[in-house]
Amino acid sequence: MRIGLLQINPMVGDIAGNAARVEAAYDRAVAAGAELCLTPELALTGYPPRDMLLYAGFAVAARAEADALALRVFKRHSSGPALVVGCPEPNTSGQGKNLFNAALWCQDGLVRKSVRKALLPTYDVFDEARYFEPGRTEPGSGVVDYRGRRFGVTICEDLWNDKDYWPHRLYPVDPVEAAAAAGADALLNLSASPFSLRKQALRQDMLAAICKKRGLPLAYCNQVGGNDELVFDGRGAVFGANGALLARAEGFAEDVLVAELFGDEPQALPADDLSAPAETFRALVLGTRDYLAKCGFKKALLGLSGGIDSAVVAAVAAEAIGPENVCCVLMPSPWSSRGSVDDSLKLARNLGVKTRTISIGPLMRGFEDALADSFAELAPGRGPDITEENIQSRIRGNLLMALSNKTGALLLTTGNKSELAVGYCTIYGDMSGGFAVISDLPKTQVYALARHINLLRGGVIPQAIIDKAPSAELRPDQKDEDSLPPYEVLDAILALHMEKQQTAAEIAAQGFDPAVVARVCRLVKGAEFKRRQAAPGIKVAWRSFGSGWRMPLAAAPLP
Amino acid sequence: MRIGLLQINPMVGDIAGNAARVEAAYDRAVAAGAELCLTPELALTGYPPRDMLLYAGFAVAARAEADALALRVFKRHSSGPALVVGCPEPNTSGQGKNLFNAALWCQDGLVRKSVRKALLPTYDVFDEARYFEPGRTEPGSGVVDYRGRRFGVTICEDLWNDKDYWPHRLYPVDPVEAAAAAGADALLNLSASPFSLRKQALRQDMLAAICKKRGLPLAYCNQVGGNDELVFDGRGAVFGANGALLARAEGFAEDVLVAELFGDEPQALPADDLSAPAETFRALVLGTRDYLAKCGFKKALLGLSGGIDSAVVAAVAAEAIGPENVCCVLMPSPWSSRGSVDDSLKLARNLGVKTRTISIGPLMRGFEDALADSFAELAPGRGPDITEENIQSRIRGNLLMALSNKTGALLLTTGNKSELAVGYCTIYGDMSGGFAVISDLPKTQVYALARHINLLRGGVIPQAIIDKAPSAELRPDQKDEDSLPPYEVLDAILALHMEKQQTAAEIAAQGFDPAVVARVCRLVKGAEFKRRQAAPGIKVAWRSFGSGWRMPLAAAPLP
Repeated sequence: MRIGLLQINPMVGDIAGNAARVEAAYDRAVAAGAELCLTPELALTGYPPRDMLLYAGFAVAARAEADALALRVFKRHSSGPALVVGCPEPNTSGQGKNLFNAALWCQDGLVRKSVRKALLPTYDVFDEARYFEPGRTEPGSGVVDYRGRRFGVTICEDLWNDKDYWPHRLYPVDPVEAAAAAGADALLNLSASPFSLRKQALRQDMLAAICKKRGLPLAYCNQVGGNDELVFDGRGAVFGANGALLARAEGFAEDVLVAELFGDEPQALPADDLSAPAETFRALVLGTRDYLAKCGFKKALLGLSGGIDSAVVAAVAAEAIGPENVCCVLMPSPWSSRGSVDDSLKLARNLGVKTRTISIGPLMRGFEDALADSFAELAPGRGPDITEENIQSRIRGNLLMALSNKTGALLLTTGNKSELAVGYCTIYGDMSGGFAVISDLPKTQVYALARHINLLRGGVIPQAIIDKAPSAELRPDQKDEDSLPPYEVLDAILALHMEKQQTAAEIAAQGFDPAVVARVCRLVKGAEFKRRQAAPGIKVAWRSFGSGWRMPLAAAPLP
Repeated sequence: MRIGLLQINPMVGDIAGNAARVEAAYDRAVAAGAELCLTPELALTGYPPRDMLLYAGFAVAARAEADALALRVFKRHSSGPALVVGCPEPNTSGQGKNLFNAALWCQDGLVRKSVRKALLPTYDVFDEARYFEPGRTEPGSGVVDYRGRRFGVTICEDLWNDKDYWPHRLYPVDPVEAAAAAGADALLNLSASPFSLRKQALRQDMLAAICKKRGLPLAYCNQVGGNDELVFDGRGAVFGANGALLARAEGFAEDVLVAELFGDEPQALPADDLSAPAETFRALVLGTRDYLAKCGFKKALLGLSGGIDSAVVAAVAAEAIGPENVCCVLMPSPWSSRGSVDDSLKLARNLGVKTRTISIGPLMRGFEDALADSFAELAPGRGPDITEENIQSRIRGNLLMALSNKTGALLLTTGNKSELAVGYCTIYGDMSGGFAVISDLPKTQVYALARHINLLRGGVIPQAIIDKAPSAELRPDQKDEDSLPPYEVLDAILALHMEKQQTAAEIAAQGFDPAVVARVCRLVKGAEFKRRQAAPGIKVAWRSFGSGWRMPLAAAPLP
């Protein structure tokens, strides 16, 4: 049986538009001979719809659209394939959360059956227990008989709880086991599984292991596209009953894949570069492009400092929306090196983006004058300190936002994850902007990405930008390493603290200088207030700041 | 049996400090004759500890502190009352979430029994399913025999699922029913139930109804204090088996209440003003005081515009930390009225707070000069628009942050909920600041609060500030109502949209002008990006922006 995976890029909340995307993809799959079609999870609302789900009218509209869609595709293809579409479904039982996360089996013009997600991820960026009641896993509730075969229908997390694969299981039940026990011939899965580095290898390995263990083939349809901080990488796939990967849809792009489910011959297996810089670049480009487009922006704007971070963001922006839609602003101060300006202009020429240059010296003097009396009165004898550095950064933020307001271009922030972690950034200054392109990339990964971009795009980033020592240039001869440990050390500590949830003592026990570790952990906690007001950024790591990082502010440090 | 309610104000994460607070309160309760003592929910970590709970070392440290605390109180009071203390407890079953939310029954120097929370709120600001595995409700698992009585131990939400009280239940089980079935003589409850307007009346009504229905008395100990956006109002209470309120602890203050559980005579019932402005004022003062103290700030700073919002924030700040620790900054522009400056100075004199005045005219001209060429080049022919208004606001933000950085005073933002809802505020401008005192108060409630403060504190807010038409004064003769519907209308629409989750069509059906409703809902969606970067504010309403409002950004509007 030929399965069509409708790997669409939905717009969150755009119910009618998403149904039209599904319908167009269904038509393509029919033309390619599909006999059964799958969408991603919650395809009609896009994933994640978050608190839009709390509006009863929203879920009702989505569910009604599913009925209409079932009828529309039937009218045009009366003996066409069934369509399994992801959609929220009101819970009318009078108890529990108001919705189910459902896969609606559309056939012969009707929604014939609903299968409800049983395992609701409620960790990291996921809040499904906030909205959904879990589906029952009573025998047979998750299987559908169709054209002589029995299909076990599952939704995303439903596949991720195999007791042999995971040393620690999150849930007591396994919908795959239930489907197998109910006599399924094959598994279907509707997913909205976001990208993070190293996840695709894990995903393929796990899906293959489940198919092999159960002796069942699997059709897996994943969402693609950027929705706020999450990028979905698509890569829908078909696995044979022996666990072999038979076909895979594109990564980071819309696709319609039609492949034979009950076979063992590899069919469509496009190349897929899983190296970290390659994956990162594709994720950032897609995430930036989609955030801009889905928010209604055609143009972007950013400050170019002459450093590596803003250079990489400029290159990503140019790739995402075309260099003609990117404007880079140079805002030298008396502490900016000549090299910073020259390198920035060279980068902009290489990329083909517009530039503007605005010197901030006069505005710095204006703020000095405005504040002199108050500083003398309220903080007598206090010399220049971080205050003056922040003023510079906030002058730049104000200039950039003014250009954004006046021209309708979205301001991109250029800070990296290492800075954001330890607070080496100015709130309302360089943190100003609507979207933080590389805020989930530690500095060491920013360098790797710059080298990758240069390989891919003919050395657009001048070598001088890659070679110079990192500096905020907010005072004479400033270097990042005057204030911070070397980035190799800092990033290693941060990875243990953030991704492995290790406390300072646990990290130090692995051979790091305890004083350095303690200072880094203290800085991370101290910067929580800045991150609370940070722009959304693109998730790349296993654990990121943003909606998956929920720390208290007025709190004691971790032990 | 005399019950001691240890109504402490914990610091989130401060395990040793919180244990010391419990111990000191226990000593006071013992001195007052308590025979059994209760803390609030998760008293040793403070509530909500949020993602600190993901660090295994954190929960282990809290659980170890409970053992040590049990021993310490036993050593000093060897025949003293049992202590039931709220604490996270590692889940060692190898399946599910890593923790339980537990009530540890400490007696004779040991933790004798753990009762685990069964109902885990995962809605609004609550994320308990993110961290905790639910406790079992097997017969007898939640009861403890002590001094001839059997106590049904419950934790916060465990009480909030009575099938007769609630038309729609969230959970299939009821721990109170289970305790009654297991022969409990009385109910104990450890809570961290945050304040919102009208909640106390509901809480008392519901608790009384449960006691009456089950024929069981109840001792209810609630946390007090401000933790980030949440204020806990305390008001621990003892209810008789007939549902009568027998005793109540202080609202919005630490307290140790000792009262007889198995009686029917009212004992300690301090007056408690449940009017909205009175409750609001107490919540804002406590929330502001605690946020400052728990973040380590002694002083606060804010911009005084001459309007009602900043006047109210100044009054709250002066009440919270003393006028000598509050500095108000006047930053008139050429568009500021003379009255605004005079009214602000009069307010400051009445409150006894310091003021500084900095005219921003020269800086406005500085930005005009800096941007003139770029505006001409990038947006030819475009005249002054919202851009110039935002520049003014961001100049003020920069000045205030500079004073904050230089003096170590926390900057308070002064925006109200109506503005924040529709985006009538400047990101990185007047939205700058670490804590948003009135960001959950609609404008109409700000007026009510101002009148209440004047009644309470002898007319500190000049009448001219209350009487003038609201204006941002960002251009000549600007009035809020040029851009927005009258606040009575706006606030009514916002309440339906936010608190009742109604879509525009549903709101219009109640008699509002459909065009106005559509515009307001559009503005709310359009301001999402600003709120994503807003300072945390104090929750006052049933539903607030902040951690209980999780809307997507790049999304289509609600239907």
